[in-house]
Amino acid sequence: MTGPGAAGRGLEAGVRLAVDAMGGDHGPVEVVNGALSFARANLADRLILVGDEATIRALAGDLPANVSVVHASQVVAMDEHPALALREKKDASILVATDLVKRGEADAIVTAGHTGAAMAAAVLRLGRLPGVDRPALAVQMITSAGSLVLLDIGANPDSTAEHLAQYARMGAVFSERVLGVARPRVALLSIGEEKGKGEVRVQRATELLDATDLNFIGNVEGKDLTRAMADVVVCDAVLGNVVIKFFEGLSTFIFELFRTEFRTTWRGRLAYLLLRPGIGRIRQTFDYERVGGSPLLGVRGTVIITHGRAKRRMIHHAIEVGARGARAGLPDVIAAAMRAPTIRPATEVGS
Amino acid sequence: MTGPGAAGRGLEAGVRLAVDAMGGDHGPVEVVNGALSFARANLADRLILVGDEATIRALAGDLPANVSVVHASQVVAMDEHPALALREKKDASILVATDLVKRGEADAIVTAGHTGAAMAAAVLRLGRLPGVDRPALAVQMITSAGSLVLLDIGANPDSTAEHLAQYARMGAVFSERVLGVARPRVALLSIGEEKGKGEVRVQRATELLDATDLNFIGNVEGKDLTRAMADVVVCDAVLGNVVIKFFEGLSTFIFELFRTEFRTTWRGRLAYLLLRPGIGRIRQTFDYERVGGSPLLGVRGTVIITHGRAKRRMIHHAIEVGARGARAGLPDVIAAAMRAPTIRPATEVGS
Repeated sequence: MTGPGAAGRGLEAGVRLAVDAMGGDHGPVEVVNGALSFARANLADRLILVGDEATIRALAGDLPANVSVVHASQVVAMDEHPALALREKKDASILVATDLVKRGEADAIVTAGHTGAAMAAAVLRLGRLPGVDRPALAVQMITSAGSLVLLDIGANPDSTAEHLAQYARMGAVFSERVLGVARPRVALLSIGEEKGKGEVRVQRATELLDATDLNFIGNVEGKDLTRAMADVVVCDAVLGNVVIKFFEGLSTFIFELFRTEFRTTWRGRLAYLLLRPGIGRIRQTFDYERVGGSPLLGVRGTVIITHGRAKRRMIHHAIEVGARGARAGLPDVIAAAMRAPTIRPATEVGS
Repeated sequence: MTGPGAAGRGLEAGVRLAVDAMGGDHGPVEVVNGALSFARANLADRLILVGDEATIRALAGDLPANVSVVHASQVVAMDEHPALALREKKDASILVATDLVKRGEADAIVTAGHTGAAMAAAVLRLGRLPGVDRPALAVQMITSAGSLVLLDIGANPDSTAEHLAQYARMGAVFSERVLGVARPRVALLSIGEEKGKGEVRVQRATELLDATDLNFIGNVEGKDLTRAMADVVVCDAVLGNVVIKFFEGLSTFIFELFRTEFRTTWRGRLAYLLLRPGIGRIRQTFDYERVGGSPLLGVRGTVIITHGRAKRRMIHHAIEVGARGARAGLPDVIAAAMRAPTIRPATEVGS
């Protein structure tokens, strides 16, 4: 199961994780506490907290033996323009964390900070893997039967058939090597269930994917997304981004309707008390904190971006995804997969 | 408010509605009963039930004075290939109903049958309106503050910027003239809130829409869809289709989780009894039957396609949308809007 990059390291060997301690809507307190929680539960791994040293030490108190701090004097704010911010803030925590991986001093980066800045830092400092024209941001999406990997949910629209085929390959590697799904079913998100139905790029991507050894099952539709019809669902960034944000919006909308009913009348409050165990089960199904680490696939490093709103528990789980990715040697296994001769090189980007 | 086509007809004047009595998953029984319900409540309007006369008369019993039957010996099944079926079944109910509008014997078509067949019949028999390169299927989507119009949710992917701009214009006309929204806010569905952010076609459509007199507000994101940030949301068919099917899938998924909890334990059953009024309110918010008539915009006729799963109540409401569309002279007001000089003609289809 371990890729070439993990050669010599056993599955249980420790990895070194650079955590951007300053990122996220809640600032360092949630990130630091999430990181400490992970560190205490995973003594073989080493955590490097990157950010303002005084702040981190004040929050963390006595550091566990497997946690260290690397100082970074700046931070990219959530509302900054990513490229501009990275140009101006050379000592931003996300850049310092990324450079630790670049120099081989860490095996993965985990951040709850500005998604665009994290992606830009990874592409600029680490670079793309050979055979990857565009890195893709993947998310583990909740379904009625566990989770599936949806990608791309990033910021690069107008992907080509070749991009989609590359996303498919990378998503399959992540699903198999990091999430442990055997022969993950790979599908294209489109209109209509018939194979190849949809946009021209989906028709062409279908041809490309049919020629690979992936377990490619054709199209899935919007209604299939919650039914776990596939393990890896591939689409352009616009579609992926709209789906994942609509998921958040719609589920919040529905849960809020119930919450209002549970709170505004005595009947509702009593119903809530009775239903508490059931609501707990529903919460567990919709526990996105558990699956909240989104890998940026296709760069020369394991990069996990979690939600800006992540609190300590979700940070802990995001670091876990980073650790699993690092242990699997994610960049190396993706690079190996991209060398598979059945994937055609993308000769015309933007076609 | 009435368009040129409604000239001479007052707002309260009756319209003639051709109802495809054979379409839908539940067959004629639901359609006929829904139509009779509408006919009894709207005595000024005339209903023409199209389909197997014996079946319809057996189901309907004595027909109200404002209901008549036009015989059609065939029906397009829900799993048939639309173009093939229409070629082979010249006497299909959807074709016969469409021809009634074509010959001026009806003012609108309402069907719960095969969506693709209804669209194909409308385009083939009625044709597109001048200035419309592609008809668009619109849906009234439920939000936390009423409904919004989402289009295109049809079957034609790879729309251009010009198509999107035309959808915007047609959706705005439907929102204003049929739903009664004053100066509807029109938005493009994309990634990122900044105006013009997203695909190249969205950037170009932004330029086109900025040059119109529409109340164009720029982009909305997936998370904005349930928050009624716009009255008309425009996107390519793939995005619209995935969103609306995902809406169905995700809301069903969540409601099923609650239903299971309400049914499987005594605590749940008791909670359900207590919460019944609240669940009624939630049901009312999610009452898609009330808004279930989807207009096909841009053809020379008022065409309303409702869900294949529609039962009589939803059929009744879909016919209401058809009546409102016919009363507003929908095709004529759309044609007039498309002549607005600020809409650039789409010179390069497929660009």
